[in-house]
Amino acid sequence: MLWSGWGDPARARELPEQVRGLLRDFLGVRAPATPAVALESVRLPPVALPEPLLGALAGVVGAAHVLTSHEARVRHTRGKSTPDLLRMRAGDGSDAPDAVVLPGSHDEVAELLRVCSAERIAVVPFGGGTSVVGGLSGVAGGAAPGGPGFAGVIALDLARLDRLLSVDEESLVASFEAGVRAPEAERLLAGRGLTLGHFPQSFEYATLGGFAAARSSGQASAGYGRFDDMVMGLTVATPSGTLDLGRAPRSAAGPDLRQLMLGSEGAFGVITLLRLRVRRAPVERRYEGWRFGTFAEGSAAVRALAQEGPLPTVLRLSDETETMIGLAKPDAIGSGGSGCLLIAGYEGGSVAGRRAEAGAVLSRMGGEPLGAEPGEAWERGRFSAPYLRDSLLAVGATVETLETAGFWSNLPRLYDAVRLALAGSLPSPLVMCHVSHVYETGASLYFTVVTAQEGDPVAQWDRAKAAANAAIVEAGGTITHHHGVGRDHRDACAAELGPAGVSVLQAVKARLDPAGILNPGVLVPPPARDA
Amino acid sequence: MLWSGWGDPARARELPEQVRGLLRDFLGVRAPATPAVALESVRLPPVALPEPLLGALAGVVGAAHVLTSHEARVRHTRGKSTPDLLRMRAGDGSDAPDAVVLPGSHDEVAELLRVCSAERIAVVPFGGGTSVVGGLSGVAGGAAPGGPGFAGVIALDLARLDRLLSVDEESLVASFEAGVRAPEAERLLAGRGLTLGHFPQSFEYATLGGFAAARSSGQASAGYGRFDDMVMGLTVATPSGTLDLGRAPRSAAGPDLRQLMLGSEGAFGVITLLRLRVRRAPVERRYEGWRFGTFAEGSAAVRALAQEGPLPTVLRLSDETETMIGLAKPDAIGSGGSGCLLIAGYEGGSVAGRRAEAGAVLSRMGGEPLGAEPGEAWERGRFSAPYLRDSLLAVGATVETLETAGFWSNLPRLYDAVRLALAGSLPSPLVMCHVSHVYETGASLYFTVVTAQEGDPVAQWDRAKAAANAAIVEAGGTITHHHGVGRDHRDACAAELGPAGVSVLQAVKARLDPAGILNPGVLVPPPARDA
Repeated sequence: MLWSGWGDPARARELPEQVRGLLRDFLGVRAPATPAVALESVRLPPVALPEPLLGALAGVVGAAHVLTSHEARVRHTRGKSTPDLLRMRAGDGSDAPDAVVLPGSHDEVAELLRVCSAERIAVVPFGGGTSVVGGLSGVAGGAAPGGPGFAGVIALDLARLDRLLSVDEESLVASFEAGVRAPEAERLLAGRGLTLGHFPQSFEYATLGGFAAARSSGQASAGYGRFDDMVMGLTVATPSGTLDLGRAPRSAAGPDLRQLMLGSEGAFGVITLLRLRVRRAPVERRYEGWRFGTFAEGSAAVRALAQEGPLPTVLRLSDETETMIGLAKPDAIGSGGSGCLLIAGYEGGSVAGRRAEAGAVLSRMGGEPLGAEPGEAWERGRFSAPYLRDSLLAVGATVETLETAGFWSNLPRLYDAVRLALAGSLPSPLVMCHVSHVYETGASLYFTVVTAQEGDPVAQWDRAKAAANAAIVEAGGTITHHHGVGRDHRDACAAELGPAGVSVLQAVKARLDPAGILNPGVLVPPPARDA
Repeated sequence: MLWSGWGDPARARELPEQVRGLLRDFLGVRAPATPAVALESVRLPPVALPEPLLGALAGVVGAAHVLTSHEARVRHTRGKSTPDLLRMRAGDGSDAPDAVVLPGSHDEVAELLRVCSAERIAVVPFGGGTSVVGGLSGVAGGAAPGGPGFAGVIALDLARLDRLLSVDEESLVASFEAGVRAPEAERLLAGRGLTLGHFPQSFEYATLGGFAAARSSGQASAGYGRFDDMVMGLTVATPSGTLDLGRAPRSAAGPDLRQLMLGSEGAFGVITLLRLRVRRAPVERRYEGWRFGTFAEGSAAVRALAQEGPLPTVLRLSDETETMIGLAKPDAIGSGGSGCLLIAGYEGGSVAGRRAEAGAVLSRMGGEPLGAEPGEAWERGRFSAPYLRDSLLAVGATVETLETAGFWSNLPRLYDAVRLALAGSLPSPLVMCHVSHVYETGASLYFTVVTAQEGDPVAQWDRAKAAANAAIVEAGGTITHHHGVGRDHRDACAAELGPAGVSVLQAVKARLDPAGILNPGVLVPPPARDA
């Protein structure tokens, strides 16, 4: 993984001339004044943890698994949001952990939490490092004004928890350690003819534990469900003991505590083990494109599929702007057409029947079939967007994504509110949107924003993000459909949950993490003093 | 509702001679020594709440909505488990509330919780009164030894919260007050061509709020999902403020707190309002029967439907004993056949395609089609079982149900363990079982037990229930798939969640209900003293 960007540097790509022209002529993008720094030039704070504490951590995991090198610290600094990348490109490593600690088992995680609680060492659980919401930037917010500080902060990297433990082929449940990366999970399952079917944008690097902790949802969610739908059981190490949840697919044995740990983003405990629903690997795959006249017409069509069925495995509808830019075909960016492009993908044992039925609905709702090419182009480029972002950052454009979800009747209001907020807070931005996660009662809206960098690009985006967050809360949407909360959505999430909801999160955190060491500042607002 | 049994007394039915013969000859059932008492002979404790406190409650809801009559108190005593009915038939009203209070709005509920917290009045939220797990018997357990007592206990009856507030036909979301009974909800929705599709055994009396509070699952769960799947949003009054949850079908804005309130059984707060996913009412309905040679073969067939699809709307597989007795056709009890009866029901706009596909799977898995008659007989009798229970109790048989769920590979172990526990703790009981809620990774097992009453029938059943609970925990199942926890499953649920899980429930309860007034003793074990 590129330390200051995404993925394998060998896969970095030049922007097509058409795109560079558009950036220059329509958005006023100009080359940045200073190029990105080299890794060795990133400025890090000195290691705050004293030797005896580093020794105590090494006593748990072995000295070879406590890293304090410049490179290890840089590579565990923050996540992969655009502000995260901009800061790293500028050489700002101020949020680096003091050390990277790699436990080799659930028991070592549990013991680390005990030591860190006793010694007041903040712990940032680290899976693939792909958070785009400040989920790995917990510390600053944790040291509340006047509150007790921390002796230091470690990144708790789960990379060594990398095993497929067992597969129950009758129940179609696979037990994984939480540090397994998604491609490796698919490789291990493919040997048995199985798949998770979870393919988010972060697929190449994210871990199963991270998917669970942040409630990930993948590009094929219409067919395979969200990641939280796949979690049948999970084991969580907390400073107050281990939770081992999930004896049946569903239960009425009280509240579903799995659903309390899913989305807990490392603030309640560290997920170490997952029991996941798997599916038979598809025999057949068909991807195709459809065109609708307007986003409203296309939205009505995807709503019909969600409410009447049948659902394709992948369903993505771009609005007019995203279609024009060609964002659904990242390998052919700039080659878009008019109207709104819909991508429908079908995977399964045999897809003909479902494809015919869904096609009949799309035709009835005004869709024009475009054949296989747009679908296959989307599939080829499905993980390209983060690479494209690096190319855009390099030429002086800020590009970032944000997302929300709501009930169908509220989506037009949400769509307008977010676009208005971004237009009002950025210099003539390009704002694109697609629907790619649908439910019977509603859907998500996923926005991609491109704008020319002006002055301090981090501060510039922070203002736009604040405006978008406020617009989402005000328009009644949820602050995130699948990116998670982290620090960037914490206050908006609190507004969404209300004071009683926030106090529930605080109570659970106080019970499971009484020393407050776990990802401080992320997800859970610190309790008001003397409240 | 019959105060000492189920439903409309006019619908009570005589047992067929074949059944009476079987009870006598095979189970040794003899007429009970004493008949059931009359309502006016039920022994109630004196009203403990002093006049000023009754006046304070009347100040919130109006004097007409605070009831202390003998009949009102009897009708709000406990729920509808067999031990509950046996106690009432014996005239034991010792768990009666002091008063029945009927608030007319969310705000009145919130104000009642404030008053009751301040005055230490225990509150048992009451919907349809159909709990079969001691969910309405909270008080005895709440007055922990040495702990502070309560000034009294009220049943908080939600019957006046009986309105359909709005329907969002685009999003297919209906907003209901929580006290609406299921048949009334269906009637209100039918006028708009909509349905919830939630038909549990308790359908005739249970309320929407009760379904949510206890994580109900209905007979058509294969097609319409569990009730918790239908809850898009909910409003909960708690002593620490109101929770208003659900801005989108699904979200990554932290843990899903809806899933923390679903199944909270009135111990965290009182659900006052629900936003529920609804469906277009079915145009076509087809119910039919299939026969399998063995329960194992039938289970493999329903597993194939759950994992490969397509799922019928209703899917129920009786084991050999339940098939022989004919329990899936309550109107023709005693007329069963050999092998294992499977009921498949299809509802929708047009069911032919799905029915043909599912039929092909059932045939391939060894099923023999029996045509429409068994399916239609099941549908006619689908709400008859509780009436049948009253008839059995009257002739001296104890009949009760219990249920669990697990992953497919563990179901045979669970099935054997529960049967062994019941056989070992009751005099030659008749134990029947069916699978009626299926998932890709597992299913529920629903047991019906009939045995001759010996000595104290309540104590007799308590021993059998304790043995079954222990067997379920030991065999790795969940203590309940859809009956809920109440008092009867509280300790087994605690064993299932483990100490860290229990401490989370306690922390949430302590935060939302600091005075501990809400359904004390139900769901959440009291904290260990000085622990």
